[in-house]
Amino acid sequence: MKERIEMCLSGSGGQGLILAGIILAEAAGIYDGKEAVQTQSYGPEARGGASRSEVIVSNNTIDYPKVIKPDILLALTQTACDKYAKNLNKDGILVADSTLVTEIPTISNKIYLFPIAETAQEKFATKLVTNIISLGIIVGLTAVVSQEAIQKAVRSKVPVKAKEVNEKALLLGLSIAKDLKAKKQGSN
Amino acid sequence: MKERIEMCLSGSGGQGLILAGIILAEAAGIYDGKEAVQTQSYGPEARGGASRSEVIVSNNTIDYPKVIKPDILLALTQTACDKYAKNLNKDGILVADSTLVTEIPTISNKIYLFPIAETAQEKFATKLVTNIISLGIIVGLTAVVSQEAIQKAVRSKVPVKAKEVNEKALLLGLSIAKDLKAKKQGSN
Repeated sequence: MKERIEMCLSGSGGQGLILAGIILAEAAGIYDGKEAVQTQSYGPEARGGASRSEVIVSNNTIDYPKVIKPDILLALTQTACDKYAKNLNKDGILVADSTLVTEIPTISNKIYLFPIAETAQEKFATKLVTNIISLGIIVGLTAVVSQEAIQKAVRSKVPVKAKEVNEKALLLGLSIAKDLKAKKQGSN
Repeated sequence: MKERIEMCLSGSGGQGLILAGIILAEAAGIYDGKEAVQTQSYGPEARGGASRSEVIVSNNTIDYPKVIKPDILLALTQTACDKYAKNLNKDGILVADSTLVTEIPTISNKIYLFPIAETAQEKFATKLVTNIISLGIIVGLTAVVSQEAIQKAVRSKVPVKAKEVNEKALLLGLSIAKDLKAKKQGSN
């Protein structure tokens, strides 16, 4: 894996992207023994309802904590996808919600589409776990952190009474990633 | 007020410093109409139990999102105070928990001491609001964000069932700041 991995989790406020970023960074920095920085920015876009959580994972000290060209982009709204997909690293991957993001940009990167929020609602009767299913998909596709680490980080960061549903949501995300990968390989 | 204000909220994991940083950044970036960036880093120190949440507030775009010389430092453990107080900007202020930080470094900056965690336990029967009392003290002392903005941000970010206690904790922090200021002026 690359020395420094830049990730951008983008969508709208209320989709739990900040918590998702923190969980990812803790998985890397606390449980996988790497360096991790997690950032959110607030300005005109946040006042308009947009949300963007950045995570950088590295084997070495992270001097510059800003994401420039994400290696991994999660887009949970069309606006977010339109805005950030063009910055993706050329070998980067885009994970987008196929119901919320209907116009996929014509980029050469690896694109994985799945109705994440819809599946959260169907399987768990709440869209609140969309963020955790997304984490499962990202980790399953990229192995940016270990499955053990992400499981520990989810357990430590979600509220006690929501632990079980979030653990199941993470496992579902990991299994979705497996299917998406198999499908991609079949189509090549 | 300065164009760019750098803040560092430091202590140990479990003291709610990440949430406090997010609340402060949202107060500035969403409710006060400024630019704000909030960051946490995870590495060997975080694995040892330390926690540090950074917030930068500015009237303009924030190009470099890392805190170099904090204008405001909150220290909720001795280790954190020992480590970060020396980086304080020369006009910066240090807010430290007077029970948890017993050795105050010999710096020329403005120092405000208060038994924050102990007061949280006494007044609200829980140390969980130490972070929100601390926010009240910081905002009351520095006006880095407006009181209206911090109140809105607290309301929007804490769990519904803990809203009332956190709102009270914030008001207590603001009133502690008033006393600390009066005391400081009296001693000059």
